[in-house]
Amino acid sequence: MTVMTVDEIERFLDEVFPQRMGRIESVGEMRATMRLKIGHEHLRPGPRVSGPTMMGFADVALYVAILAQIGPEPMAVTCDLNCHFLRAASGDHDIIAHARLIKLGRRMGVGEVQVYSTSDDARPVAHVVASYALPIKD
Amino acid sequence: MTVMTVDEIERFLDEVFPQRMGRIESVGEMRATMRLKIGHEHLRPGPRVSGPTMMGFADVALYVAILAQIGPEPMAVTCDLNCHFLRAASGDHDIIAHARLIKLGRRMGVGEVQVYSTSDDARPVAHVVASYALPIKD
Amino acid sequence: MTVMTVDEIERFLDEVFPQRMGRIESVGEMRATMRLKIGHEHLRPGPRVSGPTMMGFADVALYVAILAQIGPEPMAVTCDLNCHFLRAASGDHDIIAHARLIKLGRRMGVGEVQVYSTSDDARPVAHVVASYALPIKD
Amino acid sequence: MTVMTVDEIERFLDEVFPQRMGRIESVGEMRATMRLKIGHEHLRPGPRVSGPTMMGFADVALYVAILAQIGPEPMAVTCDLNCHFLRAASGDHDIIAHARLIKLGRRMGVGEVQVYSTSDDARPVAHVVASYALPIKD
Repeated sequence: MTVMTVDEIERFLDEVFPQRMGRIESVGEMRATMRLKIGHEHLRPGPRVSGPTMMGFADVALYVAILAQIGPEPMAVTCDLNCHFLRAASGDHDIIAHARLIKLGRRMGVGEVQVYSTSDDARPVAHVVASYALPIKD
Repeated sequence: MTVMTVDEIERFLDEVFPQRMGRIESVGEMRATMRLKIGHEHLRPGPRVSGPTMMGFADVALYVAILAQIGPEPMAVTCDLNCHFLRAASGDHDIIAHARLIKLGRRMGVGEVQVYSTSDDARPVAHVVASYALPIKD
Repeated sequence: MTVMTVDEIERFLDEVFPQRMGRIESVGEMRATMRLKIGHEHLRPGPRVSGPTMMGFADVALYVAILAQIGPEPMAVTCDLNCHFLRAASGDHDIIAHARLIKLGRRMGVGEVQVYSTSDDARPVAHVVASYALPIKD
Repeated sequence: MTVMTVDEIERFLDEVFPQRMGRIESVGEMRATMRLKIGHEHLRPGPRVSGPTMMGFADVALYVAILAQIGPEPMAVTCDLNCHFLRAASGDHDIIAHARLIKLGRRMGVGEVQVYSTSDDARPVAHVVASYALPIKD
């Protein structure tokens, strides 16, 4: 069961994290999907989507999936992030992140993200796994 | 399309990697499932399944998924392996690895594995991502 | 032995990767040190230095260490990057990356980076390990 | 400052983790060095030292470095472990792990390990980064 809607999460992020990348497309049980419109600041030569863009975008998507489950919590902190870069992502197309929480405990959350380009190629361009420390409540 | 059957892969592994852990349950398009019967050598205090057991078992499962796609290749080499430990796995139950290749290119393969205990808990006990260098053929 | 000077590497990067973060402070045998002046685009609320900034900056520092060893090579590609976030880095101070190559083979390079804030705290704010696929030459 | 000697740590591990790999050579401020005598159970074809052996051994070395700092604590739990395999390690030589803690906080510890073969080659055979959840004390 999710406890925040897409609109509620976007409003919360506008407040606590206005610089984040991308817009939420949907949230669901332990899941979130986001889309990022590629601008000049997201590119590296090619042009293709830069690595930091894919990693930062995946990180936001997992944070959104956590918010959808636990409610507005500004203090979930990324502990580690592991990214495998799979293919070049053309700078001419948006990218999509499909985030899925693998574990959501009291102290820690762990999730994975498949990042896709919206070009014709149906294969993922990056795969991310990350863990988050959650504030402990009494 | 897979190019080796479960029996062909087991026979190949008996030859090149007899000390491996576990038995193959099935292989499919970019996938493999394996089961490990837990013995004393796989335990840490608790008793629960040790971390090296889960990492080594996941590594074998991805190697099997690669073999099923590319045929008998003793020289696929693990480059990096990232494991998140999610929950304790009871030493009284077998563990299962569901391996899935995310990318299989000419030079590199990348895959992920969900490791489960066969206890009542339906949630994964570990998540692994690993990459493999493949021999380059002319 | 290094084969490019700091100035030569900066000029090469101006050409092939003008959007990169930071300036090189020094290069040496299998090593590079860089400094990033923090601007608004590098911040998250706090304000502190954002995760993608630290990961992208570490990635550039390892690429610079590789260039210093192998010469101008636009095609070194990041395969995987693993970051542990250790402490918040104040947005009021520059950050420094100390990159060190652990392996530099014909096909692959692997390196690690300690990222520091230039605030009073002497402890690292992030630790990164990453691998790079190198073009194979005949 | 360390709070346990090598002998005290070995005795503690004999009690709580008798199946561990290797012997401690030394401990110091945020550091530990261990040696593993290679037996048949540590090999893969070649023969060379297997991946799970290197990962499990590195994990023990970081746990020892944590024990030396915080005292006898059976409940430090590995959260994630990232290993880059750098070179084949001959099965005819012992391996050495040099573990170093990068962070040791109240809730989390993070460390890295360089694994070496005692063969003539002076370069590391594997590099590990791992994080540990520590029990929270009041």
